[in-house]
Amino acid sequence: MVTIAVDAMGGDDAPKAEVEGAIRAVRSLGVKVILVGKRDIVRAELDKHEDTDGLPIEIHHASEQVTMDDSVKAVRNKRDSSIRVAARLVRDGVADGLVSAGNTGAVMATAKQVQGMLPGVDRPAMAAAFPTLKGTPVIVVDVGANVDSSARMLAQFAVMGDIYSRVIFHTYRPRVGLLSIGEEEHKGNELTRAATPLLKALPIHFIGNVEGRDIYAGETDVIVCDGFIGNVALKVSEGLVEMVSKMLRESLEATITRKIGSLLARRAFNEFKKRVDYAEYGGAPLLGVKGVCIVTHGRPNANAIKNAIRVAAEFAEGNINEQIEAELASGQLVGASAAAKAD
Amino acid sequence: MVTIAVDAMGGDDAPKAEVEGAIRAVRSLGVKVILVGKRDIVRAELDKHEDTDGLPIEIHHASEQVTMDDSVKAVRNKRDSSIRVAARLVRDGVADGLVSAGNTGAVMATAKQVQGMLPGVDRPAMAAAFPTLKGTPVIVVDVGANVDSSARMLAQFAVMGDIYSRVIFHTYRPRVGLLSIGEEEHKGNELTRAATPLLKALPIHFIGNVEGRDIYAGETDVIVCDGFIGNVALKVSEGLVEMVSKMLRESLEATITRKIGSLLARRAFNEFKKRVDYAEYGGAPLLGVKGVCIVTHGRPNANAIKNAIRVAAEFAEGNINEQIEAELASGQLVGASAAAKAD
Repeated sequence: MVTIAVDAMGGDDAPKAEVEGAIRAVRSLGVKVILVGKRDIVRAELDKHEDTDGLPIEIHHASEQVTMDDSVKAVRNKRDSSIRVAARLVRDGVADGLVSAGNTGAVMATAKQVQGMLPGVDRPAMAAAFPTLKGTPVIVVDVGANVDSSARMLAQFAVMGDIYSRVIFHTYRPRVGLLSIGEEEHKGNELTRAATPLLKALPIHFIGNVEGRDIYAGETDVIVCDGFIGNVALKVSEGLVEMVSKMLRESLEATITRKIGSLLARRAFNEFKKRVDYAEYGGAPLLGVKGVCIVTHGRPNANAIKNAIRVAAEFAEGNINEQIEAELASGQLVGASAAAKAD
Repeated sequence: MVTIAVDAMGGDDAPKAEVEGAIRAVRSLGVKVILVGKRDIVRAELDKHEDTDGLPIEIHHASEQVTMDDSVKAVRNKRDSSIRVAARLVRDGVADGLVSAGNTGAVMATAKQVQGMLPGVDRPAMAAAFPTLKGTPVIVVDVGANVDSSARMLAQFAVMGDIYSRVIFHTYRPRVGLLSIGEEEHKGNELTRAATPLLKALPIHFIGNVEGRDIYAGETDVIVCDGFIGNVALKVSEGLVEMVSKMLRESLEATITRKIGSLLARRAFNEFKKRVDYAEYGGAPLLGVKGVCIVTHGRPNANAIKNAIRVAAEFAEGNINEQIEAELASGQLVGASAAAKAD
C-alpha cells in the first residue's frame, strides 16, 4: 500500500482540513496516511470524526511547526518541525511521498535539503495545473521554485513537465510550449531565445513559443517558463478570479431579482467556481526532488488535501522520478548542455 | 482645438471602427481628428454615416498600410504607410497625438523612430490600465515595449507611470509598486533587487514589492515591471477572462432555465463584461516618445477608438511629456543612475 506523509500542521487552520482530508483519502483511495504533527492536537482532531478506528492512519509526532512568518534560518533551525519530520519519513523510505499546505518556500527548501535532488536535475521546479477551456488542465512549470533560471534549467523543466503530464493526466504526446510574448521564435527575451534550441533538441513534442493568453486555451499541455514569470502568471490568475467572482456576484445580485434568481445564480456560480478551482487538480508537485513532495494551497479544504494525497500516490505509483532520472541520464541533454555553454 | 491623427488602416476590420470612433469623438469631445489612410476607402466609409459634413474631421492620404504579418524590415520600408504618415503629422506639429489599432510592434517602432524619444528616457514603455476591485484602474508599465529591462529603465517607468496616473486618472500621490513574487524586499529576482534602491530614491510614493494577485486588488495605482512580465500578465488576464466568460455562459445557460433566466443572465453578464473591458479605459499609451502615441486593441470597436482619442487628447492637454522631461531632467535619477552603475 502506498504511504503518504501529511504535514498536519501546515495550513492556516491546521490540522482541521489535513485530518479530514486524510480520512477521506484513506477511505476512497486505498492509501495509508501518516499524519505528522503534535500528537495530542492531531489525536484530538482525529477523535472529532466517527468510525476512524481501524483506518490506515498513523500519527507521527513532531514537536515543532513552521509558520508563514518564519525566516529561512528559522525554518532550518526547527529540526523537529512537522515538514522536516515528514521529509525525513520520505527520505528514509517510511513514506512514499509527502503533502504539505505550509509555507511554500519552507516546504521547497526542506524537501530539497532533506530528500535531496534527483541525479541530472540542477534545481527542483514547482509545477501547477491550470484549468483550460478544453477541460484538460495545462501544466505550468516553474511557478516559483526558481528565479533567474538558465536555458538548461528550462530544458529540464520541459522534460519533467512532459513526464508529469503523461503519467498524471494521461496525455498522449504532450504539446510542450515555451511561455513568451509572441509566437514567432525571435520574439521573447534572452532566456527564451537561448532555451529554444535546447527545447528543440529534446525528444518531446515541442510546439514553440506560446503567449500568456494561450495558457487557458487548452491547446498546450505543458508550458515552460522561469519561476518568476510562472509565479506572476499564477498569482495574476488568482487575483483576477477573485475580482471576477466578486464583480459577478454583485452583477447577478443587482440584476436577477432575489425571489426567482438567487438560488439559480448561486448554483451556476458554484459550478463555475468548481471548474476553475485549483484544489480540484490536487496541488503543485515539486519536480526533481527524490521521493514525492506535493504543496497545496495555504488555506486548504479537506478536498484539496485529499486530492493532493491522491496525486502524491499517483506520483509514487507512476514511478515519475525513475522516468525523470532515466530521461535526463539518457544523454538527451548533453547536446543541450553544450549548447547552453556556447551562449 | 486638440488634433489627433487616427491610423485609419490599423485595426483588423479597418477603417470601419476607426471612422465611426472618430465621428463619435469629434461629436462629444471637442477635438479635431485627421483620419490617415487610403483616401477613397476612408471617404467611402465616412459617407456611410449621416450628417458628417462640417464635422472637424479631415482625411490625410497614405498609400500603404502595415499588416499584422509584416516584418520589422517591411514596416521600415513602407515609407507611406498610414502609421508612419500619422507619426510624421505628430512630429511636424500638425497633430498633437496619434491613435492606432495596428500591429503593436510596428506602431511602437515607428513612433519611436519618427517622433523620437524624450530627453532623459532610455526606452519607451507601454502602459496598460487594468480594472480593479476598487473601481479605479491600476496602470501596469511596461506591458511589452521592452524585454530584459535594466533597473534604471524600471525607475524611469515608475516616473512616467506616476505622472500618467496623476494626469489621466487624477490620482493623488499614486501608490507605486514593483511587481515581484513576494512582498518582502529580498523576494524577487536580480532585476527587482537592483531596482528597489533606485525606486526608493525617487520622489514618488513607492510602496515596495507587490505580487501578481495585487494587480486586481486596487491597493496600488502604478505597477512597474519588465515588459516581458507585464506582457505575460496582460495576456494571461485576457485569456482567463475569455475562458471565464465562456464557462460562465455555459453554467448560466445550463442552470437558469431559458424561460425565466436567459435575459436576466445576459444582462448581468454584459454588466460584468463592461466592468472588465479594457476598451473602456482607452488604449495603452507609449510613454517616453515625443508627442503622444496611443495603441488600442487590434480588433477595436468604435467605442475603443473614441476612448483612445479621448486619452490622446488628455495626454496632449495635460502636458504629460513636459512633466516627464522636467522630472527626469531634475536630477532625481542621477543618484539612481549612479546606483545602477554600481551594481
